[in-house]
Amino acid sequence: MALEASLAALSIAQVSSQGLNATKSLVFKPKTAKTAVPVPVVVFALHSTQTPASAIAHAAGVKEPRLAKDELVEEFFGVHAKEFSVASVTKEHAGKIKVLVDEALSKDQVYELATESAKAGVSGKDILGYLETTGVELIPVDFSAVPEVKKEAAAPKKDASAAKKENKAQLDAKLIGVTVDKFLDFPGWYQQILTKGEMLEYYDVSGCYIMRPASYFIWEVIQDFLNTRIKALGVKNCSFPLFVSSRVLEKEKDHIEGFAPEVAWVTRAGSSELDEPIAIRPTSETVMYPYYSKWVQSHRDLPLKLNQWNSVVRWEFKHPQPFLRTREFLWQEGHTAHLTFEEANEEVLQILDFYAAVYEELLAVPVVKGKKTEKEKFAGGFFTTTVEGYIPATGRGIQGGTSHCLGQNFSKMFNISVENPEGPDKPKLFAWQNSWGLSTRVIGVMTMIHSDNKGLVIPPRVAQTQAVIIPCGLTVKTTKEQENAILDGVKAIETRLNKAGIRAIGDYRDNYSPGWKFSDWELKGVPLRLEFGPKDLEKQQVTVVRRNDSKKFNLSLDSLEEELPKILDQLHDDLFAKAKEAFDSHRILVEDWKDFVPALNAKNVILSPWCGRMECEEDIKDSSAKKDDGEDEEVDEKAPSMGAKSLCIPFNQPELKPETKCVKCGEKAINYTMFGRSY
Amino acid sequence: MALEASLAALSIAQVSSQGLNATKSLVFKPKTAKTAVPVPVVVFALHSTQTPASAIAHAAGVKEPRLAKDELVEEFFGVHAKEFSVASVTKEHAGKIKVLVDEALSKDQVYELATESAKAGVSGKDILGYLETTGVELIPVDFSAVPEVKKEAAAPKKDASAAKKENKAQLDAKLIGVTVDKFLDFPGWYQQILTKGEMLEYYDVSGCYIMRPASYFIWEVIQDFLNTRIKALGVKNCSFPLFVSSRVLEKEKDHIEGFAPEVAWVTRAGSSELDEPIAIRPTSETVMYPYYSKWVQSHRDLPLKLNQWNSVVRWEFKHPQPFLRTREFLWQEGHTAHLTFEEANEEVLQILDFYAAVYEELLAVPVVKGKKTEKEKFAGGFFTTTVEGYIPATGRGIQGGTSHCLGQNFSKMFNISVENPEGPDKPKLFAWQNSWGLSTRVIGVMTMIHSDNKGLVIPPRVAQTQAVIIPCGLTVKTTKEQENAILDGVKAIETRLNKAGIRAIGDYRDNYSPGWKFSDWELKGVPLRLEFGPKDLEKQQVTVVRRNDSKKFNLSLDSLEEELPKILDQLHDDLFAKAKEAFDSHRILVEDWKDFVPALNAKNVILSPWCGRMECEEDIKDSSAKKDDGEDEEVDEKAPSMGAKSLCIPFNQPELKPETKCVKCGEKAINYTMFGRSY
Repeated sequence: MALEASLAALSIAQVSSQGLNATKSLVFKPKTAKTAVPVPVVVFALHSTQTPASAIAHAAGVKEPRLAKDELVEEFFGVHAKEFSVASVTKEHAGKIKVLVDEALSKDQVYELATESAKAGVSGKDILGYLETTGVELIPVDFSAVPEVKKEAAAPKKDASAAKKENKAQLDAKLIGVTVDKFLDFPGWYQQILTKGEMLEYYDVSGCYIMRPASYFIWEVIQDFLNTRIKALGVKNCSFPLFVSSRVLEKEKDHIEGFAPEVAWVTRAGSSELDEPIAIRPTSETVMYPYYSKWVQSHRDLPLKLNQWNSVVRWEFKHPQPFLRTREFLWQEGHTAHLTFEEANEEVLQILDFYAAVYEELLAVPVVKGKKTEKEKFAGGFFTTTVEGYIPATGRGIQGGTSHCLGQNFSKMFNISVENPEGPDKPKLFAWQNSWGLSTRVIGVMTMIHSDNKGLVIPPRVAQTQAVIIPCGLTVKTTKEQENAILDGVKAIETRLNKAGIRAIGDYRDNYSPGWKFSDWELKGVPLRLEFGPKDLEKQQVTVVRRNDSKKFNLSLDSLEEELPKILDQLHDDLFAKAKEAFDSHRILVEDWKDFVPALNAKNVILSPWCGRMECEEDIKDSSAKKDDGEDEEVDEKAPSMGAKSLCIPFNQPELKPETKCVKCGEKAINYTMFGRSY
Repeated sequence: MALEASLAALSIAQVSSQGLNATKSLVFKPKTAKTAVPVPVVVFALHSTQTPASAIAHAAGVKEPRLAKDELVEEFFGVHAKEFSVASVTKEHAGKIKVLVDEALSKDQVYELATESAKAGVSGKDILGYLETTGVELIPVDFSAVPEVKKEAAAPKKDASAAKKENKAQLDAKLIGVTVDKFLDFPGWYQQILTKGEMLEYYDVSGCYIMRPASYFIWEVIQDFLNTRIKALGVKNCSFPLFVSSRVLEKEKDHIEGFAPEVAWVTRAGSSELDEPIAIRPTSETVMYPYYSKWVQSHRDLPLKLNQWNSVVRWEFKHPQPFLRTREFLWQEGHTAHLTFEEANEEVLQILDFYAAVYEELLAVPVVKGKKTEKEKFAGGFFTTTVEGYIPATGRGIQGGTSHCLGQNFSKMFNISVENPEGPDKPKLFAWQNSWGLSTRVIGVMTMIHSDNKGLVIPPRVAQTQAVIIPCGLTVKTTKEQENAILDGVKAIETRLNKAGIRAIGDYRDNYSPGWKFSDWELKGVPLRLEFGPKDLEKQQVTVVRRNDSKKFNLSLDSLEEELPKILDQLHDDLFAKAKEAFDSHRILVEDWKDFVPALNAKNVILSPWCGRMECEEDIKDSSAKKDDGEDEEVDEKAPSMGAKSLCIPFNQPELKPETKCVKCGEKAINYTMFGRSY
């Protein structure tokens, strides 16, 4: 039932919720055997209470609880997940669910109970009394006893210890901050830093997200960066429609086969059923190539190089994840047609270099360039090149962007051909085509790699705000004159920096302490904090604090314009070096199969001599999957227990000694291939 | 029937169509009384034959034939319009249609018969013989007798005479050029210049179009121009999802009422029916404002100023028109929330100035700024400001872009409110909101105003190519040395211009004559043509020709960098001045109702003293519609015979003398309002 209806049914009077303590009602699904009926765990707690998965697991006696999918909430409680509150629990749920109740809730206080569309005030007594009448299992939990729970967490020792230390700091921090640990609950952490850091907002339609200005700004920087480079190659931007007729979509059967299960169909407009359903593009090959066929008549029409910045829709039914797996995403898709293979091939590699540069030069994310195996290449293409990244916290590889040479397969299918320039008696020539795409996934990769338990860490070249200047040291004893001098100083610094091309803002809010502001800007990932207090004023300096490592130093006001750009570049380099060290030290050379799975389980990606055979690749995947418990993996089929896929055949190869054998099958190795669990 | 099936049924052997003369099969629908069954006219002609509407009208004895809508073609011939060819005519059509056959077709030749998906070669004898067997009325037409037909055209005398002159030049021109006259068949002309000028391509899904690089470039210039200005106001770009749940979409009933008939619904993904249909946004008010409510908690969170560059879908069932009325279109939509009305009001006007600047400073299109009447304002808004343009060829006004103050209606609906900064005991404050949007419609307006019978005329500031340099005077007698000197000279000019920031290209194609190239670049609307031949080489000059008025002059090579930017600016100013003169001289002050409709019929928009009452506005519209013939207006409800709408109440008002009476009802006038037939 929706909130108002539920409360009405309970005869709990609605009062204004203005100014009341907020609460949260969450539904978790523990890991259960596939055959078992899931037993949801409802958590009802103060909004400000941290409720880590580990604590829930401990209190409810379940394994790995994760936030339940919308479908499960709806199935169990008959309301959309956004409309769920603890008031949706009824007698029907007795024996079927467990409810954890935050001990911090008092019977004597009135709390705000809220869903997306409604809010109400209810006393602790009323709501707890009601829950007792339903007969569901109620478990009081003291969530403040978190450190004790942490001991039981299954994270690697070193990480846990580091995390515990961070966690203590975090417990001291403001409520605005991140309340889950990157290494203990990576998905929960990821969600929190994105939303609390104001990069992204969860949306009413599952699998769709709002890109807030901080993340869209990153995308705009990437657009400028790539536009400059591809336009210099003669690529022109254009815009093809969002819609595809089913006839055209299905023209290339092999190609569309992979996309068909994810295509969204418009069947109705207003109140009219359409004569035939119209698809929303999942990618634009079949949208664009019929027109390439029309436009390319002579070899003088080649090369044809078009690109579009658009959004595509792939209605995946797997667990969505912001930026990494979303039903609509922004990307660019370049589609080019050339007279010769050589020209197409050169472009494929040039574009891949641009993609690597987006990661390394803008996002401070190291990548490995290489070629996909036959199994992993683009369906219908000739070969696929890729930039592959690595997420240290999960030990998984991640495909960063792909540049495909399509060969002549599509040009033959769509008849993109020209008269032979050598004469009309020679056979006509089919174009050599490429397609290449980079999506907003890059923002997810960047976030997962650099950010920490204090929040986002945004690399300086893509940060909407590169430096925040905070007036400090203002107390009740400060004279008005002193205060004005400080505020004027901050304003002057802000103006100077912006004039120098540094994206800076002063934080003049008078209702927050400097400490609160520090946390707030750390959460948002601003690369540099400039503190300006009475001592700084006196010494004509600012105190600079780097977001990535909290390094603190003074800088003379005279040298701001000269030094800050260098400091931002250094920060970029340091972020990159740290991420590169993590990738390099977790990219392990494995020659013996016995070392393969252990290395994988230790959060590495693996470089192994390999025979290049597709059956062997499949064998590696099967043999490296954890298959011990037959448990339900539906939440994420790419979870850590999945097998290792080939990520790429790196261009940069270790020397392959003669007679080297394939790591798995023992046949002759033809190259070193990078394997890993991946996103 | 589709082409192959049709031909198979006719037992006409398919042969390769390689190298054959192309033909065209067109279906026209004449103007007929609403109650009458339409009698389509099929035109079967050489592709290169000009078949103006006036000639068709004359030969078939019908009124105002227009290209038939896809639905009509499908209804009559059982094939999609793109698959229609004259081979789809069967015995069933005897007595129901007329077929005009181009006399230029010879029985002895083999022609190419083509539809979008198929091509075949058929002899004139076979196809004419077949048509005779069907029993349909066949009318042979000598389309080359065009000038005679022109006499009958219903265009105003002056236009017809000018057009005739232009038409003669056009008859001499290459086949690549525009084959319809702007003043005789405006819709046909518009379609041709857009497609032949390579701005736009018609697409497989009705109402959707491909924006080719030339038009997308214009959009990119506009994006840069507006981004710079709105970001300086503190507006930030972001991205909200394409999809809206029906629950959210329908939250604001009044607002959505206008959009509901045009909303496209996704009901299926892959092979799964969705539990509830999901809408594609027609605009983003209801998509965004629930989150504004969440993000705006304190007066310190205001102003909130977001903008997005995206596409929206409005599944109109009216006749689509490229850029002006399309089912998907690109636009920007800004949505801001402010603490006070004053701040919101200031922004509304500031944004309107930006929109006017896009038209006037980039597109050389004059606009009139003003306020919409209550009848025409944005549904659910407080007031709407607008920039209004004028299309001389049709005498119709066109809404160019709107900037709305939404007042507090939406903020109350979505609870976008803050605590009163004066204290918690004061009532909470609802935000004052604005929304403002500019779409790719601007490109259509620009095209309709400046372009001519030779093709596009693109104003220099938005032209992808501002100058083309064409090597001239190369003949069989030219020595290799001379030729190289000319080509090197062209290359040197190209390099110098690009270095100077002028978007220039050299046309080095060796398979076309300079004359052909002149026509080709005129068709594409490139503002300046630079000819470089032996005489120019000798005198160290170029010959410059302006696209807009064919003015020709020499320019010393030394002065290129200095003079060309001035020449481009002058060209912009001249385009603007010409368009402004047309608008100003067709914006007629009318005080007496008796002059109103005649002025309207003479292709004017009208400025009249008006009482401001909605009933009077409706009366003006009804009274100014042509209602003499009860004819079918379904093709375009906004056709010339429609009544005059209020376009805006111009900010720039003539002096309203006391006691001035409303032009229509005679009550006291409260202002001068601009009326006109419009798009």
